Amino acid sequence: MEGKDDVWGTPRLTRQIAFLMEIDRLKTVLRRTVLTDGSRRENTAEHSWHIAMMAMTLHEYVAEPKPDLSHTIKLLLVHDIVEIDAGDTFAYDTQGYSDKEEREQAAASRIFGLLEEDQAAEYRKLWREFEEMDTREALFAAAIDRLQPMLHNYYTEGYSWKENGVRHAQALRRIGFIDGVSPVLASFIQELLQRAVDRGFLES
Amino acid sequence: MEGKDDVWGTPRLTRQIAFLMEIDRLKTVLRRTVLTDGSRRENTAEHSWHIAMMAMTLHEYVAEPKPDLSHTIKLLLVHDIVEIDAGDTFAYDTQGYSDKEEREQAAASRIFGLLEEDQAAEYRKLWREFEEMDTREALFAAAIDRLQPMLHNYYTEGYSWKENGVRHAQALRRIGFIDGVSPVLASFIQELLQRAVDRGFLES
Ligand SMILES: [Ca+2]
Repeated sequence: MEGKDDVWGTPRLTRQIAFLMEIDRLKTVLRRTVLTDGSRRENTAEHSWHIAMMAMTLHEYVAEPKPDLSHTIKLLLVHDIVEIDAGDTFAYDTQGYSDKEEREQAAASRIFGLLEEDQAAEYRKLWREFEEMDTREALFAAAIDRLQPMLHNYYTEGYSWKENGVRHAQALRRIGFIDGVSPVLASFIQELLQRAVDRGFLES
Repeated sequence: MEGKDDVWGTPRLTRQIAFLMEIDRLKTVLRRTVLTDGSRRENTAEHSWHIAMMAMTLHEYVAEPKPDLSHTIKLLLVHDIVEIDAGDTFAYDTQGYSDKEEREQAAASRIFGLLEEDQAAEYRKLWREFEEMDTREALFAAAIDRLQPMLHNYYTEGYSWKENGVRHAQALRRIGFIDGVSPVLASFIQELLQRAVDRGFLES
């Protein structure tokens, strides 16, 4: 990338521009999910946009007290940036999960650390909050982040479920917590998984 | 797409799911800009994520009274969805611009119209607000939307500038309004364009 080491108006701006150009790489991180037209695998940057739109569109279904939508969107936009270094860990990959935290911690330090400390800390905090699933916003964000690939799977006849031998019980375990976030979304996704089994998209 | 006409819990939810699956197509709308690694053209969904991150990261530079960041992010996430039907109109394509409004109006009616009227109206309003560039949020969003492809151009040695014969004066006209949004960002982008000319990335 030409001009990578360019210095701009201030050291702070220079670091911000370097960060913003570095995160362009999220567009080349591939997930297991394919686009709904089946044409290719989805990348993490476009996935991040899609889940932000899903949060906006489905926010009304979250139980009271409602999570703050804007904060939820920030969690969704930022939390996957660590995948630039750590890669996408497939949801059902227990092997990959064993060192996921360590890999992502190092990634968060390096990538957010391109920014000055106050802003690096802000983004690291959003990433941690998403991972810890302790706040209402983080729980809603996590629910959406799990719904999206299941929708894609359903609408592509179980493409990545089949490719990776995922079973109904495993998918159900991934969504157990959603009932506490939104009973409406929980029933929806349970129904979707049941239909997926009935149609042969997902192994029972 | 299998299951496209599925009915879910309520007519409202059914329409929301249909909308959310329809907008997946934004991932296949290609822009003129290439990724900073030069590997391929950028699609509009991943671009939408990138500009939302740029708004978060550069918000501090906007002149007082500051635009609301969350509202700006919503404008950025939603405004390009019309490209699913209308396609990406290249910034310097005067021909394409002559019927851009009409094509995008029809697209907004169809795509947002997949939703029930209250939500369709909300998204159409965000799209209109972005296009009209009247509010502080819309002006900041537009500034970011113009900065991003210029950064990509600079960091790819003027890839799409060269491919499309764009000249310095044309690029300058696109950013004239940014001085009123943020003098810091305006100087930054002017400096970037000047360096692009000096390095032979952009024709003077
Ligand atoms: Ca994720």
